[in-house]
Amino acid sequence: MRKLLLSLSFDGTAFHGWQVQPNGVTVQQCLQDALERLYGIRPDVTGCSRTDAGVHARQFCCHYCDSGRLKTREIVGALNAFLPKTVSVRECIEVPLDFHARYSCIEKQYIYRMYVSRTRDPFLEGYALRLIRPLDLFAAGQFCNAVTGAHDFIGFSSSGRTTEDTVRTVRDCHMEQAGFEYRFVISADGFLYNMVRILVGTLLWVCEGKIDPAEVPKILASKNRSLAGPTAPPYGLYLEQVFFGEGQVKPDAAI
Amino acid sequence: MRKLLLSLSFDGTAFHGWQVQPNGVTVQQCLQDALERLYGIRPDVTGCSRTDAGVHARQFCCHYCDSGRLKTREIVGALNAFLPKTVSVRECIEVPLDFHARYSCIEKQYIYRMYVSRTRDPFLEGYALRLIRPLDLFAAGQFCNAVTGAHDFIGFSSSGRTTEDTVRTVRDCHMEQAGFEYRFVISADGFLYNMVRILVGTLLWVCEGKIDPAEVPKILASKNRSLAGPTAPPYGLYLEQVFFGEGQVKPDAAI
Repeated sequence: MRKLLLSLSFDGTAFHGWQVQPNGVTVQQCLQDALERLYGIRPDVTGCSRTDAGVHARQFCCHYCDSGRLKTREIVGALNAFLPKTVSVRECIEVPLDFHARYSCIEKQYIYRMYVSRTRDPFLEGYALRLIRPLDLFAAGQFCNAVTGAHDFIGFSSSGRTTEDTVRTVRDCHMEQAGFEYRFVISADGFLYNMVRILVGTLLWVCEGKIDPAEVPKILASKNRSLAGPTAPPYGLYLEQVFFGEGQVKPDAAI
Repeated sequence: MRKLLLSLSFDGTAFHGWQVQPNGVTVQQCLQDALERLYGIRPDVTGCSRTDAGVHARQFCCHYCDSGRLKTREIVGALNAFLPKTVSVRECIEVPLDFHARYSCIEKQYIYRMYVSRTRDPFLEGYALRLIRPLDLFAAGQFCNAVTGAHDFIGFSSSGRTTEDTVRTVRDCHMEQAGFEYRFVISADGFLYNMVRILVGTLLWVCEGKIDPAEVPKILASKNRSLAGPTAPPYGLYLEQVFFGEGQVKPDAAI
C-alpha cells in the first residue's frame, strides 16, 4: 500500500465546496468519480480543509491510498483526462503512511481578490469582489497588523460551536495592490469557518470608516460576532497554498 | 440626434464573434437586445472590427445614434443591467456625428496570452494558450522585430481576397513575460482576418526551431500562407485597446 498526496487547483464557481454532501456537486465527489474510473474502485479521499461553496483554490491538497502499481505521472495524466476543466491535478507525490492532508498541515495561505471599477469586468466577475471606490490602504494596513498574531477568532466565525479551541495564529496578514486590483493575503496555522470572509467584510468596513482601526483589537477581544463586519462573498476567496511539516508540497512548479 | 460611442469588454468564450450572423449568438446581437429594451427600438450598431468566434475583448468600440434624451451614465447602468455578465459596457461618450467606430480607428492593440505548465490551470483554461515548454524569448524577439513595420500580410491571413490592400503597418510588436505567463503584444493600423492568430502560430514554430528567425522576412515577402505557421486557437487572443484619431477613447479608467 502507498499513500499519495494530490495537489489540486479548482475553480469553485460551480461547486458546493470540497466535501461530499447530499445537495450539489462537490470537488471531492468529482475527484472520487475520476479515481473510480482510473482504479475501478472508489478510494476514500481526505482533504486539507473544507471549503465553502463558490470558494476557489489554487492549491488544495488531499490524500488517498492505492496499491502502488501506477506511476505518479500517469495518475496525474489520467485524472486530468477524467476531471472537468474546472478541476486540475497539478501534482501527485508519494508521502509517508502517517501523512495526513489535514493534520500534517502546519499553515495555509488564503487570498481575497478585489478590484475597483464603476462597471463590472467580465474577466474578473466571479473571481474578485468589485469595489466602487479605492480602499484606504493605510486603514487596511492597521487592520492587518491588528489581526496578526495569536487570537481567539470565535467572533470572526460563523460556527456556533464553542467547545473546540478557537485560537488561531496569523503569521502574516497584508494587502497587495497592483493597478486597480487588491489582494488581501493571510497565512495562519488554521482558519475557523468563514473566518477569512468575515475578516474581509470587517476590513471593508474599516476602510469605509464604519469601524475605527483602533477598535479592531477590542472587537477581537470581545469574541462577539455582531461587532465584526459582514461576511464577504465567497467568489473573491482563494485557498492559495498549503504547507506541510516535513518538506513542502508546492503548487505546480510548472516546468 | 446624437452619436454615441460605447466601449465594451467581453468574454468571447460563448460568442460567435461580434457581428450578427445566422448561427450562434454574437456580441452585437446581445447589445442590440439590450439597446432595444432601453429605447423600445432596435438601433443599428457599428463595431470597430469583426472578431472571431471565441476571441475576447478588453476594449471593443462601437457607435450608434439616439435622440439624446438619456444621460450617458444612465445608458451605461441600464445596458449593464440588461446585458449578460460576459459583456460589460465600460464607457459611453458622445462623439461628433462624422465619427465612425471602424473608419475613425487609427490603431488597435491585440494581446495573445500563453502560459507554461505541465498541467492545465483552471483559471487560465480558455483564457490563455497552455505551452508545455518555456518559449525561446530570444528567437521570439527576433520574430517580433521582423514583423514590425509596413508589410503585405496576405501570407498571414485566412482571407482569400486579394483585391483589397493587404499592407498593414505594425507600429509595435513585443513579448512580455511574468512568471510562467507570456503576452505577445502587437499594435497596428489594421489587421487582416486571422492575422494575429497566424502570427502567434508562426512565433511558436520559430520558438520551437521549426522556422529559422532569419527566414521570417522571406516568408513575409513570399505572401504565401503555406510557409507561415498554423493558426493559434482563438481563446488566447484579446482585443486590448482601440485608438481613435481625435482624442482617445480609453478603457474604463476604473475610478
